[in-house]
Amino acid sequence: MNNQSNTESARERLRKRLHTIIFEADTPAGRVFDLILLGAILISVVTVMLESVEELGQRYGYEFHVIEWVMTVLFTFEYALRLYCVRKPMVYARSFYGIVDLVSILPTYLSLFFSGAQMLLAIRALRLLRIFRVLKLVYFLAEARILLVALRASRGKIVVFLFFVVLLVTIIGAIMYLVEGQENSEFRNIPVSIYWAIVTLTTVGFGDITPETNLGRFLSAIVMILGYAVIAVPTGIMTMELIKNRSTNTQACPNCGAEGHDDNAKFCKFCGSSLDVE
Amino acid sequence: MNNQSNTESARERLRKRLHTIIFEADTPAGRVFDLILLGAILISVVTVMLESVEELGQRYGYEFHVIEWVMTVLFTFEYALRLYCVRKPMVYARSFYGIVDLVSILPTYLSLFFSGAQMLLAIRALRLLRIFRVLKLVYFLAEARILLVALRASRGKIVVFLFFVVLLVTIIGAIMYLVEGQENSEFRNIPVSIYWAIVTLTTVGFGDITPETNLGRFLSAIVMILGYAVIAVPTGIMTMELIKNRSTNTQACPNCGAEGHDDNAKFCKFCGSSLDVE
Amino acid sequence: MNNQSNTESARERLRKRLHTIIFEADTPAGRVFDLILLGAILISVVTVMLESVEELGQRYGYEFHVIEWVMTVLFTFEYALRLYCVRKPMVYARSFYGIVDLVSILPTYLSLFFSGAQMLLAIRALRLLRIFRVLKLVYFLAEARILLVALRASRGKIVVFLFFVVLLVTIIGAIMYLVEGQENSEFRNIPVSIYWAIVTLTTVGFGDITPETNLGRFLSAIVMILGYAVIAVPTGIMTMELIKNRSTNTQACPNCGAEGHDDNAKFCKFCGSSLDVE
Amino acid sequence: MNNQSNTESARERLRKRLHTIIFEADTPAGRVFDLILLGAILISVVTVMLESVEELGQRYGYEFHVIEWVMTVLFTFEYALRLYCVRKPMVYARSFYGIVDLVSILPTYLSLFFSGAQMLLAIRALRLLRIFRVLKLVYFLAEARILLVALRASRGKIVVFLFFVVLLVTIIGAIMYLVEGQENSEFRNIPVSIYWAIVTLTTVGFGDITPETNLGRFLSAIVMILGYAVIAVPTGIMTMELIKNRSTNTQACPNCGAEGHDDNAKFCKFCGSSLDVE
Repeated sequence: MNNQSNTESARERLRKRLHTIIFEADTPAGRVFDLILLGAILISVVTVMLESVEELGQRYGYEFHVIEWVMTVLFTFEYALRLYCVRKPMVYARSFYGIVDLVSILPTYLSLFFSGAQMLLAIRALRLLRIFRVLKLVYFLAEARILLVALRASRGKIVVFLFFVVLLVTIIGAIMYLVEGQENSEFRNIPVSIYWAIVTLTTVGFGDITPETNLGRFLSAIVMILGYAVIAVPTGIMTMELIKNRSTNTQACPNCGAEGHDDNAKFCKFCGSSLDVE
Repeated sequence: MNNQSNTESARERLRKRLHTIIFEADTPAGRVFDLILLGAILISVVTVMLESVEELGQRYGYEFHVIEWVMTVLFTFEYALRLYCVRKPMVYARSFYGIVDLVSILPTYLSLFFSGAQMLLAIRALRLLRIFRVLKLVYFLAEARILLVALRASRGKIVVFLFFVVLLVTIIGAIMYLVEGQENSEFRNIPVSIYWAIVTLTTVGFGDITPETNLGRFLSAIVMILGYAVIAVPTGIMTMELIKNRSTNTQACPNCGAEGHDDNAKFCKFCGSSLDVE
Repeated sequence: MNNQSNTESARERLRKRLHTIIFEADTPAGRVFDLILLGAILISVVTVMLESVEELGQRYGYEFHVIEWVMTVLFTFEYALRLYCVRKPMVYARSFYGIVDLVSILPTYLSLFFSGAQMLLAIRALRLLRIFRVLKLVYFLAEARILLVALRASRGKIVVFLFFVVLLVTIIGAIMYLVEGQENSEFRNIPVSIYWAIVTLTTVGFGDITPETNLGRFLSAIVMILGYAVIAVPTGIMTMELIKNRSTNTQACPNCGAEGHDDNAKFCKFCGSSLDVE
Repeated sequence: MNNQSNTESARERLRKRLHTIIFEADTPAGRVFDLILLGAILISVVTVMLESVEELGQRYGYEFHVIEWVMTVLFTFEYALRLYCVRKPMVYARSFYGIVDLVSILPTYLSLFFSGAQMLLAIRALRLLRIFRVLKLVYFLAEARILLVALRASRGKIVVFLFFVVLLVTIIGAIMYLVEGQENSEFRNIPVSIYWAIVTLTTVGFGDITPETNLGRFLSAIVMILGYAVIAVPTGIMTMELIKNRSTNTQACPNCGAEGHDDNAKFCKFCGSSLDVE
């Protein structure tokens, strides 16, 4: 029993060690694992990309096939290890990364039964999101955090804004369908007209659908100038949040009460007294 | 007479109760009513959209027709109720929402006399604006208010800016017509050239009209680089207003009642008395 | 001689009175004159626009011709009056507005000798700039002033920026000509490639010239993502200047030394003492 | 030997004098040299541009050829002088400007052996970057410095942002290939779909590749609205940095030597001593 307990404890230690390597990026081994994994994902994604290019796909079809299977076996092994070494496998399996990891290996196996299923391997590109875990290690973390904080803070305003944009393009699309639909086969139904309204309002302007009647052109000129003002809103929101969250804090000087001190300030910039209140 | 008075008072109570449900979104019943109404509008708008898609319109024409009439009858009943329960029906009937509500039901009835009139049902999408009333209930209200305050504050500057843009595109359009009009049938008159100028200055760039002469391309390059600087203006205005209004709060001075104090203000900037009310 | 002096003084008074009406917009008469003039310019510009539309030009050619001549005679009379009532006629004649006023009436007279010269009437649109003088009267003046101050302050930075953009598009155009020029007849010389680079960097994207080789597409993807960062610069400049010039002043509180007070502040928001220093 | 030493010292003086003229722009002679050089580069670049225009290239081929050779000989002489008068020739030869200078003269010589090599002369446009050295002299220096400081400060955030954009367009490209690839030959492989995603997300929107299926249009509508929010990020970053760096000055604390004080600071925020030095 002592032996068994030893075995169990050895297993437990192995599991912990694996967990540190696979899930944490703070140890040298974990960092190496993450970088190798990232390299493998990159190779795999580039292979899928190149395979989609017809000329290359026909010429190097066999080589791409081999890389695809090697990577899939590797990722399957990694997926099994992840399931093995986490304490609650189901939590991982149902998490965003868990689902992405599973979906990244399935298409290759499915392609044994359904031809064409490996087309879905492009989904593997989603695994590149894992790069953000590796970024945890490096200098960019702080910068990314500032952007994320600003994005999260402006979430509410951006949802309101996007909501308004959706409403606006629906109404614009309906009106443009009424105006252009009769004479211009490009505005052939309301959903397509809404697509046009989005293309125009976001200033993308593909030009695959363009107004041809005078009234239609006049209305779309108004939509474009409107889009001018509309594009200012998300930029204004983002900038405001970034400025708000930058480096000043809300601490008031204990002597003169002035605020707006930098995070690293030790003395009030207006009266020179110490900002430490202990 | 007592009986009659009772009846009248009962009517009055019914009217008030209906008013609360239909026009106010603060009670549970009002909230339910608004959400059901919004759902009905959404279904109705989606029906109009899908009906405009030729294949679907031909296949499910009957079903769309039924939904259209059911919704129209519902909205007519709702419109009558609204007229009934407001104290001043004409004020509602002439208000923005009142007109939109009426215009949303008319096309279906008109289609009995004029074929094709139900095309105008697309206008019903305007009823979706009612969603902003329901939004009153939720968390987004404060966020929307901040955006609206900033938009209202920048109204003056944006009008000046839009005015300048209209003038600019008129002159650019006239010049481009002179330069391109002879050799390039796309710039066939000044209004069309102005349309092109708007498409270019707003960086939409459909590409349905493009300069072909060397001088025309040179001038439009200048217009585009100009548009670079021009697009900065509304963004700058909006950002400034958002930042300005961010740091002020809605606290009124307990002494002089003035508002618009900065978040970090401790004393009223108009009368100098303390803003602390404890 | 007294009589003559009276006549001269009467002339002088007429001249002054005319000057007030024509050049100043602060008196009721001056305001009325400016609004009528603006209306006449608008009618004249709209006529030129509509005349350029072939169908209308052929149908209402005579009417347009009449309006054109009436307006030209009116504007000629106005030009003569302006020359008459200013103290230094040559200064006015050489000023921006003076040249625009002359150039606006010349094409109609030239069309007597050279057919087609009235095409140049489109230049008359420049007279619409006079609307900014009328704007002086109204509420928008302050708003326009804020925008102008910000634009003037950011002039230096915007020149540096535009300079850099010109250099950048030259180099991008040269490289894209090398890459695409051989196989893609759209990039047929360096100036055209520079035009493409401007169209792309400003995110206009007409699509009349598009890369077709793999390398060309890869490079233009880089150019576009670069344009992303580049477009941020003028917006950042403009926003900074607008925020700098907004409503706070550089006055320090005489009691605690804190700054950042609003223009309309009378008391320090941090310590409550009066900001008046007399 | 004294004679020899004199000769050497004379050589040394010549070398120093040349170095001042060629490499420094602060003396009148250096300024004149830089302006002449810049003019020569401009002429040379314009010649290369015009030569690429087929009609002009055929008509003035000989003249362009002469200018090309004159400029190349001049630039070769200048390159030799630069190598001669710097203390460490190899450091210059390997520097960015050194390589650009060499690469600018090579194509003409290469064209003696390989026809078509002078096409590479377009690279000479890179020499225009030297204009920034001349700019050192002028008023714009301070403005350029502000922009550069803001760009450098936002480097980290912009790298994180660009990284995220690259990841985003990879995933969007893969998904759009899956959705559109079958029915729409324009999305013929993943790299092309990624190119489309970049064209769309940056709101360039050439229109050479456009979605045609309903699902594809729906997805690209989401991508465009997403791009709306995404374009706000670099603008927000740049604006924040410009505002942050605007209000700090270059004054060092007379007590502790720390820099980066706000314009309105009266006391050092690190040691609390007064920043007034009188």
